[in-house]
Formats: sequence, structure tokens, C-alpha cells
Amino acid sequence: MAEIRCTQCNQVYPTRGLPFRCASCGGVYDFDGPPNYDPELVERDLPGIWRYRHSFDLFKNAPVISLGEGRTPLIWERLRGLDIGLKMESQNPSGSYKDRATAVLVSQLLSRGTRLAVEDSSGNAGASFAAYAARGRMSARIFVPSTASGPKLRQIEAYGAELRPVLGPRSAAAQEALQEALDGTVYASHAYLPFGLPGIATLSYELMEQLGREPGTVIAPAGHGSLLLGIIRGFESLQRGGLIERQPYYIGVQAKSCAPIWYYFTQGWDAYNAVREGKTIAEGVRVRHPVRLRALREEILPGGGEIIAIDEDEILLAHTDLGKRGISVEPTSALVWSAVQQAIGRVPEPIVLVLSGSGLKYYKPSE
Amino acid sequence: MAEIRCTQCNQVYPTRGLPFRCASCGGVYDFDGPPNYDPELVERDLPGIWRYRHSFDLFKNAPVISLGEGRTPLIWERLRGLDIGLKMESQNPSGSYKDRATAVLVSQLLSRGTRLAVEDSSGNAGASFAAYAARGRMSARIFVPSTASGPKLRQIEAYGAELRPVLGPRSAAAQEALQEALDGTVYASHAYLPFGLPGIATLSYELMEQLGREPGTVIAPAGHGSLLLGIIRGFESLQRGGLIERQPYYIGVQAKSCAPIWYYFTQGWDAYNAVREGKTIAEGVRVRHPVRLRALREEILPGGGEIIAIDEDEILLAHTDLGKRGISVEPTSALVWSAVQQAIGRVPEPIVLVLSGSGLKYYKPSE
Repeated sequence: MAEIRCTQCNQVYPTRGLPFRCASCGGVYDFDGPPNYDPELVERDLPGIWRYRHSFDLFKNAPVISLGEGRTPLIWERLRGLDIGLKMESQNPSGSYKDRATAVLVSQLLSRGTRLAVEDSSGNAGASFAAYAARGRMSARIFVPSTASGPKLRQIEAYGAELRPVLGPRSAAAQEALQEALDGTVYASHAYLPFGLPGIATLSYELMEQLGREPGTVIAPAGHGSLLLGIIRGFESLQRGGLIERQPYYIGVQAKSCAPIWYYFTQGWDAYNAVREGKTIAEGVRVRHPVRLRALREEILPGGGEIIAIDEDEILLAHTDLGKRGISVEPTSALVWSAVQQAIGRVPEPIVLVLSGSGLKYYKPSE
Repeated sequence: MAEIRCTQCNQVYPTRGLPFRCASCGGVYDFDGPPNYDPELVERDLPGIWRYRHSFDLFKNAPVISLGEGRTPLIWERLRGLDIGLKMESQNPSGSYKDRATAVLVSQLLSRGTRLAVEDSSGNAGASFAAYAARGRMSARIFVPSTASGPKLRQIEAYGAELRPVLGPRSAAAQEALQEALDGTVYASHAYLPFGLPGIATLSYELMEQLGREPGTVIAPAGHGSLLLGIIRGFESLQRGGLIERQPYYIGVQAKSCAPIWYYFTQGWDAYNAVREGKTIAEGVRVRHPVRLRALREEILPGGGEIIAIDEDEILLAHTDLGKRGISVEPTSALVWSAVQQAIGRVPEPIVLVLSGSGLKYYKPSE
């Protein structure tokens, strides 16, 4: 079993309650090792990602909560004479890869008797949490910037969640959620709570099954870093178990207008500290303070990897190009299609791109 | 091999060209028997529904065109003490079950050298066709009512299709497509061209694999009737091959405000002729003249089945209820959730509902 510990003071996650940060020092919680995937323990009859349940390090009595997440298609697209794998996370139940994490997160919350949890997000995480909370018959209260618009809010409401618009910037919504957490309500933070990371790792097990081997390179968008970190740990687990020979080469992709991980990797802390939270159409990676920054830095190295940052006009071009190839994804997912054009030829093959979210959430009605 | 013939004059589909109705008498084309599914011939390494390629009765040189359609989750939802199966067709690449049919349709068109095809739809069929045409590097021109709005049009455009708004009712857009067909352009009509029916039948093969047996009852929305007919033929094929003991009981569901199939089944031709094309939020089944009406009537009988029509307020209630259970689907898919409440207890189990399309296409931005 991997254990959840505070990354600052090393204290083990408490056996009661659901603090989103260390109750003692305020540090970030994380697992102290990769999940323990064992092909002998796969439960083939369970739905969605739950066939890998043995690797989730669940609390006692954590129930199976599934909407059919995972088992997403791996399709191939031709680029400069090479077949590039596209892992279609956009086809998850609520429309993004977050569902892999949320299924486990909600299960963990339910195991400790949670009846109501708060979250702050106007994006994929909010929609995903609303969906799985509904599936688990738990109440969800979601704080969103009052300026947020678009179909995502309607999606959150359709799942029966309570939507709470908050005046001011994105951070004001987070403050409200934080205040409720301080008042004792469970804060179901995708960024801080590590429960969902073994759920994301299932993406790696699926890739191994679909390819019959490990990918040469995996390219994924990076905001807080949870997606890439979960994937890395999945392959780390596979390698430890002797199921793959080597880990893939990893590329995390950010939007240049808000690229703290890229600045940190390429130029260090001073550059990181100077980063501004610029606007980007790749909303899913607009994160100024990535929670998994240090873990990413430490764990990407053994297998080898890098961070790439993409300009806005290139994201837009890549998004349009994908659409014209029949691939409907959110602009955040276009980051990887742009990045592969820089990486192709110099990184190990086969190359697999993680297309993180559905384009259907992004289309606004015509006038 | 099943052959494509005119259902009026029995002529075989021509070996050249792609007429959408019989070149001799104007009749509707259809296969003269169910697909020939053979578990020995399943090609496990092919993507999407293409592992069942042997059963598609493809033209020579028809290519594999896949975006990862099919292999959709079957999840279970509790209703009055019973587990009801939900086949999540909403998780297909373009967001609806149509992708199963379109993958085969576009492959057939490409096999005969089609470079441009026209279609008329502002809904799931149009989006699906635009996606697969893009994947097959074929041009698509789609006629839509100029009053059509909502994210679906944006989705069609994102796939690079040419969108042609037409003044007047839905039928005016169809007229424009028809005119282009008369002028020699290929008319990729989902309703008339039967190519996609063996693609839809893959839904039945998957259900058998997922359940380990046949469902007791299958409930699906019915507009033109292609979805239900494809499913029936899939199970018919499985029964002929001795792979299931009996066919499921079938329930097709219509919106009462436009329910020609229901009137025909329950009250005959006079009632059918008096039907009006009333408005319904279940847009996907708003079809006044169902192309597969007669076939449905003939083929639903051996296994047993019925048509149910649902009032608008009930569709809305069912849609809201599904959302609050974490299931995001289009209102058309809510028909089956409403119908199962009438059928539960009196029809064979297990009951499986086909949730035809994604809710993400339906959400409009907040004000």
C-alpha cells in the first residue's frame, strides 16, 4: 500500500475527517509512492476504471461509484508520415479525464460519511464532481466566478448541484470554498486532495493494454500537474511490477500566457515567481500555482521528460486543425497537438497524446 | 451476405453510383436480411465498431474509418428495486449513437470515390456526418434550417463542414439537399441509405458481450426507426447464429406530439395519416414520415414488442431526473427513462435502455 502523507511534515493522513491540506502544517498531501498495480488482482467484472480498484488505496468501505469512466478509445492520426496515438479522454461520462479522478474521490468521501461537499470550478472539475456526487447521492455546492458563462454551468446545474456565483476573479470563488472548508464542510478539491491520482494512473494501464507495450512518448496538458503525475505514477507502477521495460518520455504542455511549470523547469524559481496569470483559451491549464509542481519535477526525471509552452495563436491553429480531422476537443486538448509538431522526430515512438476534454462543452450557440 | 434491394421493386442496389432511393421506382433501399455476425470472424485489433467488419456487407475497397465509436459503457441505475441497464451511446465520438452508422456510411461512400456529399440535419446526424467525413478527408455540405441554433451548428462547423442555412421549415433544408442529389452530388442520407444499419447492429453484439446473454427487454427512442431496427437485426443475427436463445422484447419510444409510429402500431393507417408534426424537446425523434416504419412493423413482431409515446412534461421530468442521477443526456434520450417507468414489472428482465445522445450538445450558455 502507498500511504497518504503530508509532503512537508510527513504526517500520515488522519484516520478520521477529510482535511484537504495537512491539519498540522498546512502542507499538501500526497501518496508516498506509486500505486501497486497487479494484473492478477484486476477485477474484470467491475465497471469503468474500477477493475483496477486494488490499486486505488481506498479507505475502508469505499463504494464503487461509476458512470462508465475510462476505457476510452486510442485512435491514430497521421502526422508527417507517422501514426500518432490519440487517447480520447474527451469521451468520458462528464466529458473529461477528470472523471477518472472524481470516481475515486467521491468514493473516498462517501466512505467517511460525507453528505455534502463544496468545490470551486467553472470547468471540467466542477462538472465532473457534480456528476459523480449525483451518482453517489451526495450533495454538491459549487462556487463559480459570476462572470463564468457557457454550457459548463448548465451542465453542473443539470446534475443537480447547487451553483453559487461569486463576484470577482477565479480566486474569489476559491476563497468562498475555503471558508466553507474552515467552517467544517468537506472541500472536495481536485487539486489538493490526492485521492484521485491512482484513478488517473488507470490511463497508463489502459495504454499498456491498448498498445501491448508502453508508449515511447506521452504528451499531456499540465495545469496543476495531476494528469501528468498520475500517468507517470501509473507507468512507474507498471515498471516496478516488471510489466514494461522502461517508462515513456513525458512531455507536459502549458499555455505560454500562464506557464509556471514551464518557467520553473526551464529557468528556475525566479522565473517562476515572475509568472503572470495571463488569459488563455486553454482554460483547463490556467493555473498560477500548480499544486503538483515539485512532485512533477522529481518524478518526471527518472524516465526523462520536458515541459513545452505554446503561444495562443498556435493553440487556436491546432484546435482548428484537429476539428478538421474529425476530432472535437476543448482548446486545452489542442496544446498536445501543437506540442507534438515540435517533438516529432526527436522523441521515442510511438507517441501518444492525451486529449483531455470534449469539444462539446466549448461550442457556443450561433447567433 | 445480405443484399441491398429496393423494398418496392426488389431491384438490387446498383454496382456503381450511390442513389439514396431506388433509381427505377423511387422506393426505399434496405438489406434483404440481418447482418451475418460470426464470432469467429471478429477482428479484435480493429478500432471502434470495426472488429465486426465482416458483418457490414461492405462494398469492395471500403476503408476502415473510425473515431473510436462504439464500445460504450453499460452502467446500472436502480429503479423500484430493479437494476436497469443504461447503454451510454452519448459517449460516442460526436456524441450520439449515429456514429456507429456514420462510420460505415462514410466508408461505403469512400469506396465508390465520393469526394463531396451533402446531408440535411441540424442535429446528431449532421454532426456525426461532418466528423466522419472529416476523418475520411471527404468534403461535407450540410443544409440546416436557418432558424436552427445551439452548439450543434458550431460542432458541425468545427469539423470543417460547409454549413448552408436554408430559410423556412426543416423540410426546406431537405429539399435543398434533394436538389443537389438530383444534380448529381452524393446525398449521404442517414434516413434513406441503409449502409449504416449493420453498424447500428453492433450495439446488440456489444450488449451480448457486456451482459453475457441477451437483454430481456431493450428500450430505444424511435424517429425514423433506424436505431431500433438496427438493434433488432443485430439480435436476429445473434439468434440465427445460435448465440442467444431468444430475442429481447423491444420497446420503441416516441414523443406524443409527433408519434406516427405509435399511432400506426396502435390505431392503424388512418390515425397515422392524421398525425401532425408537433414540436417536442425530443428533437431527435421529431420525424413525421419514418423511413423504416414498415420494416419495424414486420421485424419487431417475431420477438414481440410495442411502441410507447410520451407527453412533453413527462420527457422533461425524466430528463431532469436522469441529470440528478449523474446522467447527462439529450432530452431525446429521456424518452426511454420515462418509458421504463411504464414498462417495469411487466416486461422481461434485465431491461436495457439506449441513451442515444450526449447532454453536452443541449446545454445553452447561461445569461
